[in-house]
Amino acid sequence: MVRGTLHVVGVGPGDPDLMTLRAVKTLQGVPVVAYFCRHDTQGHARRIAQAHIAATTQEIRLAYPFTTEISVKDPSYHTDMHAFYDRCAEDLAAVLEEGRDVALLCEGDPFLYGSAMYLFDRLHTRFETQVVPGISAMSGCWSQAARPMTHGDDVLCVLPATMPEEALAHWLDKADAAVVMKIGRNMPKLRKALEQTGRLPDAVYVERGTQPEARCLPFAEQEGPAPYFSLALVPGRKGVR
Amino acid sequence: MVRGTLHVVGVGPGDPDLMTLRAVKTLQGVPVVAYFCRHDTQGHARRIAQAHIAATTQEIRLAYPFTTEISVKDPSYHTDMHAFYDRCAEDLAAVLEEGRDVALLCEGDPFLYGSAMYLFDRLHTRFETQVVPGISAMSGCWSQAARPMTHGDDVLCVLPATMPEEALAHWLDKADAAVVMKIGRNMPKLRKALEQTGRLPDAVYVERGTQPEARCLPFAEQEGPAPYFSLALVPGRKGVR
Repeated sequence: MVRGTLHVVGVGPGDPDLMTLRAVKTLQGVPVVAYFCRHDTQGHARRIAQAHIAATTQEIRLAYPFTTEISVKDPSYHTDMHAFYDRCAEDLAAVLEEGRDVALLCEGDPFLYGSAMYLFDRLHTRFETQVVPGISAMSGCWSQAARPMTHGDDVLCVLPATMPEEALAHWLDKADAAVVMKIGRNMPKLRKALEQTGRLPDAVYVERGTQPEARCLPFAEQEGPAPYFSLALVPGRKGVR
Repeated sequence: MVRGTLHVVGVGPGDPDLMTLRAVKTLQGVPVVAYFCRHDTQGHARRIAQAHIAATTQEIRLAYPFTTEISVKDPSYHTDMHAFYDRCAEDLAAVLEEGRDVALLCEGDPFLYGSAMYLFDRLHTRFETQVVPGISAMSGCWSQAARPMTHGDDVLCVLPATMPEEALAHWLDKADAAVVMKIGRNMPKLRKALEQTGRLPDAVYVERGTQPEARCLPFAEQEGPAPYFSLALVPGRKGVR
């Protein structure tokens, strides 16, 4: 029997119209879709792709065993997540072994901080895989914020806000342009690093970019906590040529 | 009279199916499209969007006054390009003043090293603007190369190969994951920087990613010159979790 193909499909940052034609065609051609979600929700990627999933398509929910209940610093976090991704990979492998194609949905771009990579890593040597790139969250955000990011020979750095303040400040100082992801509870630390490097005045805060409830404002004016779907944009130093 | 809206439309890296639904809808809704090109060609962005431009749509060709005939190091390069972008902006402004919407096509993602930014910079305070993000060249390339780039808290740096060898090596040493753009004649320098930092064995060379004539191979095996549409991918250091 011919084995199925695993399609890892980026569905973009939130606005369903930011899906690519190839993502739509892929979803229309597969008998099975799979997606990560919280145990109590449908998941962000599944909502984005809603209009293109037929009622007859089989759906495989990959529900995270936890989200914020266990800290990433807890050693059991990594053990449990590793075991979770192993189980997910086996669930998809069982379908692929039956000769059916599976589309694994992924918000944003799959290979840029996507959970789908952990399943790709486990399955790509066993099955034929196709990766459909998606509009990344950062790209959706800088387009919505109308902030050109990199001109000419600018260096762009994509930084997780989880690193220590000193490291954040070091990168923000060196980079021409920067995107800081995973703000959440790292907001106060990020603000200090932006201030310290003189980059606060140009920084832009974007929350839930390209989604109906999107917010976009100067970073200096953002108060209170930041949700998971938020990032900071620091446009490049080179302006109009 | 109501002025027209400028839509800056990313059309992706090459494969027409990597255009977004929003890009297609935008092109179907505007009376005028504009695009950069060489004086003797139709331009890459125009070719990508071909299927979605009606015969009745007015087209504005923005033909670069030169491409490689004048070096970027020549002071006249910047003066001449500045004047060229000024003229292009005025050509679009004339149409927008008449109350007609214009879609300015841009390969890849407009705000990531796109020429369209130079017109956006000149026009966005005078006219209503909308930016449609596109799949970036780098995203198209790492998807085609099937190389997951950034896991967990990896830092990603996007570097132009035009910088001095020492600077390139510095960035390649610090970054978890890196994309090096604008290879062209910087190939020997980039190879040395990759070797020196121990990152050559993991680096991947991608030429004309997502296009029919795409080539994708270990960087160490690439010989001879690199065209403009080529880049190097250095995947992050963190592997399977």
